[in-house]
Amino acid sequence: MGNIKTVKAEILAIGDELLYGQIIDTNSHWISQELDKIGVKVVQRTTVGDNREAILAAFKAAEQRADIILMTGGLGPTNDDLTKPLLAEYFDCEIKLVPEALEAVRTFFEKRGRELTDLNKFQAHLPTKCTYVPNEVGTAPGMWFEENGSVWMSMPGVPHEMKKLMEDFVLPKVKEIFPLPIIYHKVIKTVGIGESWLADLLKDWEKNLPEHVKLAYLPSLGQVKLRLTAFGDELESLQNDVENQIELVMPIIGKYVFGYNKETLEEAIGRMLKQAGKNVAFAESCSGGYISHLITTIPGSSEYFQGGLIPYHNHFKNKLLGVDEATLAEKGAVSEETVIQMAENVKGMFESDFGLASSGIAGPGGGWAEKPVGTVWIACASERGTITKRLQLTQDRMLNIQLTAVAVLNMLRLVISGKTE
Amino acid sequence: MGNIKTVKAEILAIGDELLYGQIIDTNSHWISQELDKIGVKVVQRTTVGDNREAILAAFKAAEQRADIILMTGGLGPTNDDLTKPLLAEYFDCEIKLVPEALEAVRTFFEKRGRELTDLNKFQAHLPTKCTYVPNEVGTAPGMWFEENGSVWMSMPGVPHEMKKLMEDFVLPKVKEIFPLPIIYHKVIKTVGIGESWLADLLKDWEKNLPEHVKLAYLPSLGQVKLRLTAFGDELESLQNDVENQIELVMPIIGKYVFGYNKETLEEAIGRMLKQAGKNVAFAESCSGGYISHLITTIPGSSEYFQGGLIPYHNHFKNKLLGVDEATLAEKGAVSEETVIQMAENVKGMFESDFGLASSGIAGPGGGWAEKPVGTVWIACASERGTITKRLQLTQDRMLNIQLTAVAVLNMLRLVISGKTE
Repeated sequence: MGNIKTVKAEILAIGDELLYGQIIDTNSHWISQELDKIGVKVVQRTTVGDNREAILAAFKAAEQRADIILMTGGLGPTNDDLTKPLLAEYFDCEIKLVPEALEAVRTFFEKRGRELTDLNKFQAHLPTKCTYVPNEVGTAPGMWFEENGSVWMSMPGVPHEMKKLMEDFVLPKVKEIFPLPIIYHKVIKTVGIGESWLADLLKDWEKNLPEHVKLAYLPSLGQVKLRLTAFGDELESLQNDVENQIELVMPIIGKYVFGYNKETLEEAIGRMLKQAGKNVAFAESCSGGYISHLITTIPGSSEYFQGGLIPYHNHFKNKLLGVDEATLAEKGAVSEETVIQMAENVKGMFESDFGLASSGIAGPGGGWAEKPVGTVWIACASERGTITKRLQLTQDRMLNIQLTAVAVLNMLRLVISGKTE
Repeated sequence: MGNIKTVKAEILAIGDELLYGQIIDTNSHWISQELDKIGVKVVQRTTVGDNREAILAAFKAAEQRADIILMTGGLGPTNDDLTKPLLAEYFDCEIKLVPEALEAVRTFFEKRGRELTDLNKFQAHLPTKCTYVPNEVGTAPGMWFEENGSVWMSMPGVPHEMKKLMEDFVLPKVKEIFPLPIIYHKVIKTVGIGESWLADLLKDWEKNLPEHVKLAYLPSLGQVKLRLTAFGDELESLQNDVENQIELVMPIIGKYVFGYNKETLEEAIGRMLKQAGKNVAFAESCSGGYISHLITTIPGSSEYFQGGLIPYHNHFKNKLLGVDEATLAEKGAVSEETVIQMAENVKGMFESDFGLASSGIAGPGGGWAEKPVGTVWIACASERGTITKRLQLTQDRMLNIQLTAVAVLNMLRLVISGKTE
């Protein structure tokens, strides 16, 4: 990578609805990630409104900073939308009908049984200096320019339209035009250990990483992603370098690793259950159905998810789930004894290999000195017996629900893989 | 509002982690919304990395565009974080210890039983031209400047720290300093009707809105928010104008309105159930626990949520919920007959006033000609009988789960309020 010049990009989002906070700009973040992956450095992100002077000034400023300028928005058929006429003005060219683009818009409308209006026809008129880039999933075409020493791409603001244009056209084109460093990324997904503890465990390994392999910690709720990035000249050797480092680090943190790259914890659980030919059921009190929800977001989860019960009151923990009245009265719903019975009984009820349970005080009300808000008991029952854990979480209800779910899923992961002590 | 000059703001987010897409910038969107509410016009949002030249250039450009410049990020104690030294450089002043700030950082660490390091002490050193703004929920203080004809506020990038500084200090201060138009907003929350149908119903009413009252449609998943904004000189008369318009529109769309402003559908349901002194239980098949999850995100939901069952297979619909084997065999799990029994039986099982059920094909697999992916049956049982509805949703699993939840909650809302036909 020694001689490669850094390729710089700017992302320009256009639209009053963004500046006024009516719409969240998820595009700029997504584009940032995709450019980072191919070794293009994003130097600035700018959002301007539907305003002639602001847009022209943004073009001019971006051109001075960046080799690649990626624009989203401002392409609707109405008068508010200025991106197209201002690109024509900025590059000093006319706007003319592109028959191929008209054909594409016509087909788009025909397929949906809608009539083509004059406003829509106008979407097929493009600045003469641009390359027409077909938009297969919408009506506003992409426009590609190579002008003033930079490359420019204008895309619609609708996320799935933008993404398709980026994936099908922009990213391959950028890789073709610019000499980019060869980059190989791999993300190690961990759960059940905080960032600072992980960093402490990894101190020595991290110090000995080769110069061309970088490590980033990306923490999220109850999980930490470790991203390894290798830079060099040859993809295969970079892959080897990264895999070698992973081999070195696994003996240290293997217990916390549930997967790689984009795999989520609930996907990993599904994969593990399918591999083991086992299934699961949940008795959720404080998590209120959230764990079952996470599991069932995964296509094909019916293969290993038997079902769940949410007994939100002691009466139903007893009546429907068979938790002893005496246990509930003496130990309370938030107790080790109660979650053990919940886990074991939900396993029986749903005839499953694993039964898991949560019971806790999600808050904001309901806590007391001995069991403050954030106290949660979880359990996992299997043929190898039942294990439990007491969690002391936060003051925030939503956070407590989410962290309980992560802890329960992690407990299940450890039990399936035989990694519990 | 005639003579008031538009007050312009720029939002500046600082940090490599934003440009590289490692962290989503939710701050800029939130600040946009808050400024919009008080009548400040956001003219640009800019994101730059941890780079001296880029940050200084962004300061200079923002100062030329905006009266108010709000910055987030770049305030950590490490060397990467440049906002503070560059603000001092830009305004040509020194950085000195602020004893009050040191005391605050010391207290913050003491409370958490952590030791104060030299790096943390440095967070109490501030540019001499700034006003120190205490950060009660973090270690990096806010810094307020009135320089070069603009006001500037630097805040940490951690969302809850930024929000507290905005709410406690920045927004009141901006309202105090700048002559802002008087604005009154009210949001009407609707569910169960699409944007274009709503627009069609509202055509005449919308045409007759007074000049100073603006309407915006803000669609989200299965819901549409109608935001009424009135501009003028006197708050009370604006409130009256908006309330009068709401009185006019309610006879037209009242059936779809579940609440106002920030109230969510699940909060509205909770409020209605508490008012009626009634409670609810859910039997969720295709929604997989998501409805129970939504309901239990609300503090105090144990008052009206009895619990739920997620019988993900026919066997458990029969064994645990008592759906007839013959019904399941002849009509199938995704049928009106099945959801009726599910709703009625879950009501009995959880001794609740209302019992609701969902059964459908969430996808991506499992559909066939007669019942394609996205086919969902829902039902609500109450003392007044059982009603059902067939939904034809999308090809997307997650969307189908979410839209099913909205439809079930809306059905419950209509039944509680007696608005079903």
